[in-house]
Amino acid sequence: MSATEDVAKDYYDYPDWNMENAVPTKVPVQVIPPCYPTADDRLYHICISAISLVVMLTLAFLARRMKLVDGQKRVPGLLSPVNFLDHTQHKGLAVAVFGVLFCKLFGLVIAPNPLPFTTDQANKQYWIIVSLFYYPVLYFPLLACGTLRNAVGYVLGSLLSWTHFGVLVWQKADCPKTPEIYKYYSLLASLPQVCCLAFLSFQYPLLLFKGLKRTEKTTAGEDLSSSYYNDYVKNILKKKKPSKTSTSTEKPTLVERITDAVKSYIYTPEEVFRFPLKLAISGVVSFTALYQMALVFVASVVPTLQIVRQGVNEDIAFLLAGFNIVLSEDRAEVVRIVVHYMWCVEVCYLSAITLSCSVNLVMLMRSMVLHRSNLKGLYRGDIYNVYNCQRNIRPSRPALVCWMGFTSFQSAHICLGMLIQTIVFFLCLLIAVFLIIIPIFHGQNLMLFKVLGNMWPFWLMLFSVVVVQHVTTRFCFIKKSTGTRDLHNRGCLFLLTYLLFPVNVLIGVVLGAWRLVITALFNIVHLGRMDISLLNRNVETFDPAYRCYAHYLKIEVSQSHPVMKAFCGMMLQFARQDGAEKKARDEEEGIQLVNQEKKLQHKVSISKRARGHWQLLYTLVNNPSLVGSRKHFQPQRSESFFNGTLNWAEKEGIKKEAGKETEAGKETEAVTN
Amino acid sequence: MSATEDVAKDYYDYPDWNMENAVPTKVPVQVIPPCYPTADDRLYHICISAISLVVMLTLAFLARRMKLVDGQKRVPGLLSPVNFLDHTQHKGLAVAVFGVLFCKLFGLVIAPNPLPFTTDQANKQYWIIVSLFYYPVLYFPLLACGTLRNAVGYVLGSLLSWTHFGVLVWQKADCPKTPEIYKYYSLLASLPQVCCLAFLSFQYPLLLFKGLKRTEKTTAGEDLSSSYYNDYVKNILKKKKPSKTSTSTEKPTLVERITDAVKSYIYTPEEVFRFPLKLAISGVVSFTALYQMALVFVASVVPTLQIVRQGVNEDIAFLLAGFNIVLSEDRAEVVRIVVHYMWCVEVCYLSAITLSCSVNLVMLMRSMVLHRSNLKGLYRGDIYNVYNCQRNIRPSRPALVCWMGFTSFQSAHICLGMLIQTIVFFLCLLIAVFLIIIPIFHGQNLMLFKVLGNMWPFWLMLFSVVVVQHVTTRFCFIKKSTGTRDLHNRGCLFLLTYLLFPVNVLIGVVLGAWRLVITALFNIVHLGRMDISLLNRNVETFDPAYRCYAHYLKIEVSQSHPVMKAFCGMMLQFARQDGAEKKARDEEEGIQLVNQEKKLQHKVSISKRARGHWQLLYTLVNNPSLVGSRKHFQPQRSESFFNGTLNWAEKEGIKKEAGKETEAGKETEAVTN
Repeated sequence: MSATEDVAKDYYDYPDWNMENAVPTKVPVQVIPPCYPTADDRLYHICISAISLVVMLTLAFLARRMKLVDGQKRVPGLLSPVNFLDHTQHKGLAVAVFGVLFCKLFGLVIAPNPLPFTTDQANKQYWIIVSLFYYPVLYFPLLACGTLRNAVGYVLGSLLSWTHFGVLVWQKADCPKTPEIYKYYSLLASLPQVCCLAFLSFQYPLLLFKGLKRTEKTTAGEDLSSSYYNDYVKNILKKKKPSKTSTSTEKPTLVERITDAVKSYIYTPEEVFRFPLKLAISGVVSFTALYQMALVFVASVVPTLQIVRQGVNEDIAFLLAGFNIVLSEDRAEVVRIVVHYMWCVEVCYLSAITLSCSVNLVMLMRSMVLHRSNLKGLYRGDIYNVYNCQRNIRPSRPALVCWMGFTSFQSAHICLGMLIQTIVFFLCLLIAVFLIIIPIFHGQNLMLFKVLGNMWPFWLMLFSVVVVQHVTTRFCFIKKSTGTRDLHNRGCLFLLTYLLFPVNVLIGVVLGAWRLVITALFNIVHLGRMDISLLNRNVETFDPAYRCYAHYLKIEVSQSHPVMKAFCGMMLQFARQDGAEKKARDEEEGIQLVNQEKKLQHKVSISKRARGHWQLLYTLVNNPSLVGSRKHFQPQRSESFFNGTLNWAEKEGIKKEAGKETEAGKETEAVTN
Repeated sequence: MSATEDVAKDYYDYPDWNMENAVPTKVPVQVIPPCYPTADDRLYHICISAISLVVMLTLAFLARRMKLVDGQKRVPGLLSPVNFLDHTQHKGLAVAVFGVLFCKLFGLVIAPNPLPFTTDQANKQYWIIVSLFYYPVLYFPLLACGTLRNAVGYVLGSLLSWTHFGVLVWQKADCPKTPEIYKYYSLLASLPQVCCLAFLSFQYPLLLFKGLKRTEKTTAGEDLSSSYYNDYVKNILKKKKPSKTSTSTEKPTLVERITDAVKSYIYTPEEVFRFPLKLAISGVVSFTALYQMALVFVASVVPTLQIVRQGVNEDIAFLLAGFNIVLSEDRAEVVRIVVHYMWCVEVCYLSAITLSCSVNLVMLMRSMVLHRSNLKGLYRGDIYNVYNCQRNIRPSRPALVCWMGFTSFQSAHICLGMLIQTIVFFLCLLIAVFLIIIPIFHGQNLMLFKVLGNMWPFWLMLFSVVVVQHVTTRFCFIKKSTGTRDLHNRGCLFLLTYLLFPVNVLIGVVLGAWRLVITALFNIVHLGRMDISLLNRNVETFDPAYRCYAHYLKIEVSQSHPVMKAFCGMMLQFARQDGAEKKARDEEEGIQLVNQEKKLQHKVSISKRARGHWQLLYTLVNNPSLVGSRKHFQPQRSESFFNGTLNWAEKEGIKKEAGKETEAGKETEAVTN
C-alpha cells in the first residue's frame, strides 16, 4: 500500500493512519438481544392448534346436527369457508383473514424460524414450505366460524379471534424490539395483522349480537334474497344517463379532458355496485403488500444510512484520498460534504419510496375504477370493448386456475412492481440530484450542462427545423376552405420533405430516445397492475398478468351476473310463495275441489307457459349474448339454483315465473340502447 | 504497489515484471497512413457543385420554354423533385437518391471532415450542420433531371450520375484503406452508395432510351392515366375472396395458427397493390440503415478484439494475479484460457449482431405486410380496426409534419433499435455462455445450477401446486354437460383457493418476473418498428413513433386513395375525349345547327344531371365516410383535379361524367359487404 500512500496528498498528516484498521464509519452499534416473549410462540401455537381443531370438530358436529334437524339438503359450507363468487356477503371476515395470512406469509421469508415448532436451521427451506400450508390451515377456523351463521359459531369465532389478538398484542408488548433488520421492524410489520385481528375480534361479537336480535331464518340462500341484486336491476332500469356517446362530433376541451383523466383515477363508490369478494380481498391484500414493502425498504436501509452518516469522521478524508478523491483540503469540510451527500442519498431514497408508494396507491385506485367499468361492461355484454376481441364468457380450465390465483398474483405483482419502481426512481432521483440539482446550487461539476451547452447549435437547429415544419405546414401547405382542409403547394411540400430528410433523421433519433423513456416509464409504473396489458393491443394476451385478469373476469361474470342473481332470487321467492299459498289453500278447502282446481291450474299454466315463451324470446332478442349458453340446455334446475349458479339456460325450465323475465330483458335493453 | 505484489503468488517468478509497463495486450499496431485519393474530395465537390448548378439552370430554362410552348398551366414540378403521394411513378430514382443521401448522412458523424471544403476542426459542429443541408442540395439535380420527363433531362441526369458514380468508384479504388475505425470500413460503408449511384447511372440512360422510343406525350398527369388504379378497382370488383370472417365459430387448429403467424411475417408482393413512394423509400433506407449499423458494430469492435486476442501473452497471468484471479498455475494454460474466453466473447458479440440484424429484417418484412393491410383497410374505410378508435381521415397540421418526417424517423428508429438490441442480446448471450454453457462443458463454476439445485424443493412445490390446480380444475371443478361447461364442487374450489393463497403469491412473483422479461423483450425487439405502439391499447398514441405512423397513414390515405385516383383519371380521360369530339364536330358541321344542338345538349345535360344526382346519392350511401368531406363543398374543381387531389366532394361538380360514379360505388360496396 506504500504506493497508494505516496500518491496520497501530503497534507493529510495523520501519523498512525492505516488502511486496514481505518473503518471510518465504525460507531458503537446498538446491540439488541434476542427477545423471548412470556407467551412463548411455540407453546402458543401448540395450544392454538389444538383449540382450532376442537373448534372445527365442534362446528362439524353442529353442522351435521343442523342438517339433520333442518332436513334440508344445503349443508352450510363448513369446508367452503367463504363464497368468493358472492357480492352481498359480509366481506369483512374474509378480507381480515386474508390480510392476516398475507402478513404471516410476508414475515415467513424474513423470520429466523418459519415454523414456531422447530428451530432447525439446516432444513429451513422445508420448514418454509410446510409453513406455507400450516398458516392457512391455522387461520381456517376464523373463517369457518362465520359460515354456520348461528350463535355457537359466532361465539366460537369471537373466542378464537380474541385469543389470536390477545396473544399477538401481548407478544408485541413484551418484545417491541427485535434484532431483525431494524429494532422496531417486527412491531411495525405486525400492525396490519393486529388491525385485522382486532377487526375480527370486534366483528364476531357484533354478528352474534345481530344474530340474536334477528330470527334465525338466514340460510345459505341469503345471497340470492339480498336486496342488492334487485337494487342493481332497478337502478339500471331507472337511470337514464345523459347520453354522452363517444362518437359525438364535439371535441372535449383540454380542461374537460384533463378533468376527465383525473376523475378516472379517483374511485368514488357507487351505492348500486358492489365489488366481488375476490376483488375486495385483492384490494386490501394489495394495500397490505404496499405497506409491508415500503416498511421493508425503509427499515432495511434508512437506519443503517443514518448510523453511517452519524459515524462519519475525519478518517473519511483519508479513505477518499486513497481513491484519489479530494473533496476539500480541510478535513472538517470533507466530513461536512460527505455528510451532506449522504443526506442527499437518504432523501433520494425516501423520496423514491414515497413516490413508488403514491404511484401504486393511485394505480390501485385506478384499477378499482377500471375493475368496476369492466365488470359493468361485461354484465351488459360489452365484451368487445373490454377484451378488444370477441370471447366466450364461459368457465374453462385455464380461466378457473387464473381465477383461483388472482388475489395472490395481484399482491405479488404489487410487491415486484414496488421493488422495480423504487430502484428505478431512486436511480433517476440520484442522477437528477447529483447531475442537475447539486451542480446548479454549488455551481460546479456542471458536466451535463457543459455537454448540452456545447451542443447548443445542434439543439437549436433541430428545434428550429421542427418549428419551420410546423409553421410552413400551418400557413403554406394546409388550405382551409369552408371547413374542409386540403393540401396546398404540393411542390414546395415535397421539396421541403426532401431537403429536411437528413435533419429529420436526427430528430427521429431524439424521438426514438423519447419513445424508449416513455415506454420504459409507463411499463414500470404500471407493472403492479394486472388489469391492463403492458404489450401492444394485438399481443395483449402474451402478458401473463393481463391474461390472468381477463380469465378472472370471465369466471366472475359468468358466475355472478347481478341481473341473473336478481332473477334467480325472484324465482326462488315466487316458488316459495307459490308453495306456501298452495299448502294453505289445500289445508283450508280440503280436497273436494281437487279435480276442478287442477283443470283450472292446467289452463292457467298453459297460458303462463305461452306467455313465458314469448317473454323468453323477448329477453333473448334483447340479450343476444345469452343465446350461446342456451343452446345445450338440459333441465337441472333445482341444484344450480341453490348453488346460486347463473346458468341463464335454466330460465326455460321455470316457465311459471317467466313473467319476471321481461324485467331482465328491459334492463339489458335499457343499457344497450 | 508493494502490498499488491506481496499478495501475488510467489510462483510467478518473473524478475523484472512491473505493473506500470506491463501492458500484456500490446501488439505491433498496423498503422494505416491517411490516404489522399487522386480525385481530391475538395476539388471534386467544387466542380460537381458548379456542374449541378449549371444543370439546374439548364433545367429551369428548359422547363420555362416547355411551359411557353405547351401553353398549359401545369409546370413540370422542377422544384418538387418527386411526388411522394404517387403510387405509379417510377420509384427507383427517388429511392436511390434517398439511399445515397442516407449513406452520406451516416458517414457525416464518423468522417473527420463533414464538409470537403474545409478542414476546420474547431467548428466541426457548425460544419456538420451546414453539411446536413449541403448534401440534399448537392444530390437534388439527380432527382430534378427525372421530373422534366424529356430527353434533355435524362441526358443531363445520365451525365451527372455517371460523374458521381465514377468519382466515387475512383476514390475508393485509390484509397481502399483508411485509418478510420477499421481499414476497410470506409470502403464497405460506401457500398450502398455505390449501388445506388450505379442504379441511377443505369436508370437514366434506360429512361432516355424508353423516352426516345415513345412519343412525348407524358405529362405531370401521367400518374392519373396509369392503368394501376383501374387495375386496383377491377381487382376489387372481380375478386370474391372466400369469406373468412373473424367471428367464425370454428377455432383454427394450432398448426393453422402457427402457419398463419409465420405467413404474416413473410411479405409476398401482390400485383394489384403498390406501396406509396414514401413507404418504398422508408423500406430501402431502413435496410441501408441496418447494413450501416451492423457494419459499424462489427468494424469498431471485432478487429480490435481479434488483435487483442492475438496479442495475449503470458503477462496476462500476472495482470490477473494482480486482481487475485488465478486461472491456472501454468502460465501457458492461463493464456489458453484467456484466449478461449475472449473468443467466446467475440462469438457472443457477432451472434448478438447477427441476431439483431435478423430480428430487424423480419420486423421490416412484417412491417411491410402490416403497412399493406393497414392501407387496404383504410382504403375501404375500416378505420376502427386500424386505429382502434374512430378518427378523421383528413389532413391536419401535426399529421402533415409527421408525414414529412416519416421516412427519416423510420430509419432513425431502426438505428436506435439495433443499438439497443445488440447491447441487450450481447449481455444476454454473455450471461448464457458464461453462466450456463461454459460451466456445463467444463463442469466447474456451476454457481447458477447450485443455487437452483439447492432450491429444488421450492421449485418442485411451486410446480406441483400449479399442476394440482390444473388437474383438480380439469377433473373436479368443471362440469361438462352436453357442451356447456359450468362450475361444480364449489365448496372444494373455494377451500382450495383459500388454502393455496400463500403458495400462489410465490407463483405470482415468478409470473411477475416472467411478465417483466416478456415485456422488455417484446419492446426491445419491436423498438425499430413504428407501425405498432409499444404501449397499452388505451394510451397507444402516447408512443411518439406510433402516433407519427398513424398520422402518416391519415395523409397517405386521404391524399392517394387508389379508387379515387382511378375515378379522377377516368374523369380526365372523358373530359379530354368530350372536348376533342366536340371540337371535331364543330369544325365539320359548322355552326348552322348551333341552336338546335344547344337545346338538345341542354336536355341531355338535364337528364345526365338527374342521373348524376342519383348516382352520387348511391355512392354516398355506399361510402358513408365520404359524406364528411362533402359537407362544406365548394366548386373549385379544375385546380384540385390537376393537382391530383382526392377531394371527393368535387364529384358533384362534374355531373357529365357521373355515370362512372356507380363503379366507384360498387367497388366500395363489394369491399364493405
